[in-house]
Amino acid sequence: MLAEIITIGDEILIGQIVDTNSAFLGKELNKIGVSVYQITSIQDDKEHILKALKEAEENADIVIITGGLGPTKDDITKHTLCEYFGDSLIEDKDVLANVEQIFSKYTIPLLDVNKQQALVPSKAKVLMNHYGTAPGMWIEKGEKVFVSLPGVPYEMKALISDQVIPQLRNKFKFPYILHKTILTYGLGESSLAERIESWEDALPSFIKLAYLPSLGRVRLRLSAKAMDKNMVELEMEKQIHLVLPLIKDVFVGFEEDKSIEAVIGLQLTEMGKTLAIAESCTGGRIAQAFTANAGASKYFKGSIVSYATESKTNILDVKAQDIESHSVVSREVAEAMAQNVRVLFNSDFAISTTGNAGPSKGDSDADVGTVWIAIATKDKVYSEVFNFGNHREKVIGRATNKAFEMLQKEILKK
Amino acid sequence: MLAEIITIGDEILIGQIVDTNSAFLGKELNKIGVSVYQITSIQDDKEHILKALKEAEENADIVIITGGLGPTKDDITKHTLCEYFGDSLIEDKDVLANVEQIFSKYTIPLLDVNKQQALVPSKAKVLMNHYGTAPGMWIEKGEKVFVSLPGVPYEMKALISDQVIPQLRNKFKFPYILHKTILTYGLGESSLAERIESWEDALPSFIKLAYLPSLGRVRLRLSAKAMDKNMVELEMEKQIHLVLPLIKDVFVGFEEDKSIEAVIGLQLTEMGKTLAIAESCTGGRIAQAFTANAGASKYFKGSIVSYATESKTNILDVKAQDIESHSVVSREVAEAMAQNVRVLFNSDFAISTTGNAGPSKGDSDADVGTVWIAIATKDKVYSEVFNFGNHREKVIGRATNKAFEMLQKEILKK
Repeated sequence: MLAEIITIGDEILIGQIVDTNSAFLGKELNKIGVSVYQITSIQDDKEHILKALKEAEENADIVIITGGLGPTKDDITKHTLCEYFGDSLIEDKDVLANVEQIFSKYTIPLLDVNKQQALVPSKAKVLMNHYGTAPGMWIEKGEKVFVSLPGVPYEMKALISDQVIPQLRNKFKFPYILHKTILTYGLGESSLAERIESWEDALPSFIKLAYLPSLGRVRLRLSAKAMDKNMVELEMEKQIHLVLPLIKDVFVGFEEDKSIEAVIGLQLTEMGKTLAIAESCTGGRIAQAFTANAGASKYFKGSIVSYATESKTNILDVKAQDIESHSVVSREVAEAMAQNVRVLFNSDFAISTTGNAGPSKGDSDADVGTVWIAIATKDKVYSEVFNFGNHREKVIGRATNKAFEMLQKEILKK
Repeated sequence: MLAEIITIGDEILIGQIVDTNSAFLGKELNKIGVSVYQITSIQDDKEHILKALKEAEENADIVIITGGLGPTKDDITKHTLCEYFGDSLIEDKDVLANVEQIFSKYTIPLLDVNKQQALVPSKAKVLMNHYGTAPGMWIEKGEKVFVSLPGVPYEMKALISDQVIPQLRNKFKFPYILHKTILTYGLGESSLAERIESWEDALPSFIKLAYLPSLGRVRLRLSAKAMDKNMVELEMEKQIHLVLPLIKDVFVGFEEDKSIEAVIGLQLTEMGKTLAIAESCTGGRIAQAFTANAGASKYFKGSIVSYATESKTNILDVKAQDIESHSVVSREVAEAMAQNVRVLFNSDFAISTTGNAGPSKGDSDADVGTVWIAIATKDKVYSEVFNFGNHREKVIGRATNKAFEMLQKEILKK
């Protein structure tokens, strides 16, 4: 079963807003076994909308339209829908009541232009919008379903989850669909592909595989779709069982909608262990990744961003002589930073980073992209050096991901 | 002049990633006077790509294709481009050298599949990708321009800014377009609109205005498009001169493509002043915002993320008694953190944050969303308390923005 998403409005085309609605729709539709064939973002223009509707009807069984339903005069979506379906607008009492009730809350006058939000195509089934004035509309044409929704994300999301998805489940018989994602590290997309080639070639046709690379790691996404739920679950389990030993380098406990730092946080919390960080070139990125997640205070003690060289000696108590003889970007400094920050915060584990994120060389002669990362525990410290390329943002991002990788390996050691 | 954007790959269609590339492209194209007619996201499928190319060629003068250039077997974009343009792939020596040079940096083996990244359509002008192995490609067909770019955002962005936009400017004659953005703080969209209503009504028709609200600040974007460069520049200058006194609360020196923290960094650097930070609830977010920018080491001394309460006393030397009697979320603690971190890093200015980002109450009884922010200089310290709501991510984001606002006000004081 195929769907097409049409977003209407200039904001996306001029880059004023990022289209997060389509990603949400793609995810929700995929969960019930509907594949999105195409996402089309178009202007708020009658001819353009008609063209997009025609093409979508040819391509897909389900057409979801978002945006173009605001009260301002440039929103012509509803009139165009009428033209497309040979229909006309009628006033819907319930929608009008909803509009009036919303306006009564805020003490702003109800204008005619607002009342017009109660006009819907006569053939449309109204999907009541409890968070805004623009109603959702469900229109059927033959076996095809067209759904028009407001573009405001939380209004659209509520309509999709509470009304559109359940009604699609009623109307169509969907296959069972199951997604599993494996997060791999330290492997390029191509070397990963090589490692699992034989396995991939032998995958049953109802399981699709996608490689999603980003900053030194690759997400491997398996999507299985079939009518027989048990068979899908058994086969998926079997395939993951087969592939994991081939990949070896995978993050443990990763789930699609959970960041790896959140997973590591839960693992530390379960173990009752704590973490401290000393960051130089990553400049606080690692700390903020952990603290972005609720519950970080259960395991995260804190971080010292020792950006200026003297702060490495003053605050982290790194020996000036080590910096002298080995430079700030060195094994000696990285390991001293990790050991000393662990003691300073009295934590079980500590990570440190020192390197040159570029674009120019800093207080050391290290090449741009060179980063030392150290891990310290109560009874040991060790470190590795990497070169993460010459793009500042990328160097910081890859160093952060590598730190997560080294940390998880350490905390899960038996 | 019209452009169409085609994004290739399942990740967007299944909602695995949000399509931020298209927003960037829309913005950059708009800056030079090119309107995006349509954004089309399609699968990594030959027939589908051919169909999209054909339609885009009919609709637009410029077609920008992103994604579908990775080394794995599911990427068939290049072969499809050859089919569309009646071309064949040839090995490009420079691209191959670039691929080999990149692999020589990372210690991963160079595979045949990677060497294939050096294959490009013979009619294509190569746009060298300095941050990755997949090259950009510029193909002309009659008066139309097709550009194929890797989907990795920072690779795509560099190719657009450094090569595609300049080359489009060479090939086509665009109207002169001038964008100016004013970053306002502390004002809601509607109260801002009220302050500048009379000015807005009197704007000349060739200057368009957009309100872009986010996390406690509103960007006011003026876009002027006309053939006469001098007239546009004079009028824009005049209008900005008129509106600034009406708004009052604006960030000084802000530019559209420069973050406010980057601007503050430049201002500190020019003044030869330095900054240190003590972060609790913002957990490193402020530090990483500054250090994300090249040249941060010129003014940024470092930060202490004192997440665990005891680290506020151990490391930041906050009096245990102050924490006892006022709690960790208090004026006394915020101001002590700022003063002490300034001394610790020997900086001219210091910021501190202490609060409760939620979702549940932490080591204090402060309501979720309560944040104290303090500013310290050599001769004074002061602080303010805010409530930033009950959404963790928003609390951290708004506290960070507010810290930037307070810091800039302080450093620009005469």
